[in-house]
Amino acid sequence: MSRWEPNARGRLEQAALELYSERGYEQTTVAEIAKRAGLTERTFFRHFADKREVLFAGAGSLEELLVATAAEVPDAAAPIDAVAAALEAAAAAAFRERHAHARKRQAVIVANAELRERELIKLASLSAALADTLRGRGVGEPAASLAAEAGVAVFKVAFGRWVEETNQRDLPHLIRESLAELKAVTAGT
Amino acid sequence: MSRWEPNARGRLEQAALELYSERGYEQTTVAEIAKRAGLTERTFFRHFADKREVLFAGAGSLEELLVATAAEVPDAAAPIDAVAAALEAAAAAAFRERHAHARKRQAVIVANAELRERELIKLASLSAALADTLRGRGVGEPAASLAAEAGVAVFKVAFGRWVEETNQRDLPHLIRESLAELKAVTAGT
Repeated sequence: MSRWEPNARGRLEQAALELYSERGYEQTTVAEIAKRAGLTERTFFRHFADKREVLFAGAGSLEELLVATAAEVPDAAAPIDAVAAALEAAAAAAFRERHAHARKRQAVIVANAELRERELIKLASLSAALADTLRGRGVGEPAASLAAEAGVAVFKVAFGRWVEETNQRDLPHLIRESLAELKAVTAGT
Repeated sequence: MSRWEPNARGRLEQAALELYSERGYEQTTVAEIAKRAGLTERTFFRHFADKREVLFAGAGSLEELLVATAAEVPDAAAPIDAVAAALEAAAAAAFRERHAHARKRQAVIVANAELRERELIKLASLSAALADTLRGRGVGEPAASLAAEAGVAVFKVAFGRWVEETNQRDLPHLIRESLAELKAVTAGT
């Protein structure tokens, strides 16, 4: 019954994003996504729980990558710099060559309240995971939570600028720039 | 038909929080809340859209208070200090004498995914409103967004500590302390 489909997951993601952009997220069905990808609904549900999860499938692996990278930053690094280094490395790995995709995805999410909520939850989960990693590195509270929250704020702002820009400055660069700006802002200068 | 009920809103909030704490949020109905408050369901719906909104009714006024205070901070203040001053003032006004209530409310929210999502949305809305106020004060981007996000992170961490503590250090004090900690964390010291 279940035959192997080359890159089924990627084809479904691509098809879903195309349809959400063309017709809107609410107006698109799983059947249509599967059809556009040349696959069956059954294959769709083998990869994703529902049509919302297609858009957030990457968030879990981003979080894993981030936590793994943060754990490896040299001990001497200040918490915020450990977070920033992890964000830059994860951004470089997860989003390189994905600007057009990220831009389209962001437009779909911004247009839908349910998707915006989901995005906030993923960011809160990222922050919690980072704070946890920092505590594992011996950082106390509230420093761990504040550094994690600040890091996610930097990521959010940098990501927002990245998807808005058409000239494609790279995301790690924008993260570094936003961190420098946050440092200036909190220094009160 | 509709007679005036003294402090109907406050009685409904109180009754709802008691029932959510005793039986759980999901197990409580609007009919039960109205009954506990000695009021009718009709009165409930004159004040709140649904049982979820009882918990978030204060968020709108907190946001208004925050924006009004941030707009009045002297121009010479750095963006982050304007945000912090507004947070402290709003916290003093909105949460004084409300520790027991806030603590109970937090326990209800933490226990329910839907309510946690709602809380994140309210915080994101707070951050957007603050960034908007800062831009109105002539602060550019991304400084405005970063100061607003950092301010909300400080508030979130301080509020979390405040509701966890039983010794009741006051919230404005914890906000000042968390801001100082954020400044230390981002300075990389």
